[in-house]
Amino acid sequence: MSDLAARLLAASELRGDFVLSSGKRSNVYFDKFRFLTDPPLLRELASAVAGLLPVGTTHLAAPEGAATLLVAAVALESRLPVAVVRKDPKPYGTMSQVEGHAPPGAIVALIEDVSTTGHQVERAAKVLEAEGCEIGIILLAIDRGGGKALRDAGYWVKSVVEIEAQTEE
Amino acid sequence: MSDLAARLLAASELRGDFVLSSGKRSNVYFDKFRFLTDPPLLRELASAVAGLLPVGTTHLAAPEGAATLLVAAVALESRLPVAVVRKDPKPYGTMSQVEGHAPPGAIVALIEDVSTTGHQVERAAKVLEAEGCEIGIILLAIDRGGGKALRDAGYWVKSVVEIEAQTEE
Repeated sequence: MSDLAARLLAASELRGDFVLSSGKRSNVYFDKFRFLTDPPLLRELASAVAGLLPVGTTHLAAPEGAATLLVAAVALESRLPVAVVRKDPKPYGTMSQVEGHAPPGAIVALIEDVSTTGHQVERAAKVLEAEGCEIGIILLAIDRGGGKALRDAGYWVKSVVEIEAQTEE
Repeated sequence: MSDLAARLLAASELRGDFVLSSGKRSNVYFDKFRFLTDPPLLRELASAVAGLLPVGTTHLAAPEGAATLLVAAVALESRLPVAVVRKDPKPYGTMSQVEGHAPPGAIVALIEDVSTTGHQVERAAKVLEAEGCEIGIILLAIDRGGGKALRDAGYWVKSVVEIEAQTEE
């Protein structure tokens, strides 16, 4: 395991009595917000993600939620404009499911903090494709299993660290 | 109006036929995501917000949503750890309404991108206070009327730009 991976885990593994999203109980919980809200770790992770951006990328994107912290940091590093993909379309105003910058023809690097199943990332990718964007690459800060599912769905995927998903989100 | 304010407005005012959150129609819509997802504008705004941080601030916080883009940028500028305040407590895992770093005794600068009524910011402030944090100051990137309501509620408030709310969010 890389030094960065070890520090991300050390910052994020909480001990206690937790009910997981699946309904199961666990005495370990992986709290991704812990490293996304720590400026030195956020900066280091964003720099590593930016280092994976392919030549020709025109835009960044991320699903709404925790990943917006990461995509903001990667944007400041890369100077690429950003789109945020909502789970559901906004019910007023622009009525859009995509906020920010995602013009048709954009070559997008879709960024996610942690992916266990790939489902949320794949949904966001489909929304961007429906807007006329091309998903150039999917970049996972931490691949806890989602990378394989996304590759099986036909996407080019890279990750900064891979961690076996022994603990659920 | 300052030069920064003029550029934020120019980046964010959309023309078209919009239904606002109030249900009213408008041919102008103020889309705050437009400047929060533009790296040069985000960096300049974050730098201006960081310049308003009082001595003694130990943590930053923001309501979940668009403001997480801004608070990430301010955190990278100031190196202060961040809390993100959910609208509702997370239904599993930590079960918490506050993600990230908000220990009891923290002196928090609560940051919001745009505030028209102050309601969302005041709710987030109360959640942080219930966790034992002290709201040292509330920093609004753009005060479109919320600042007065928050001052009336007893908070110290500063803003980078003030814009009269002629158009609704």
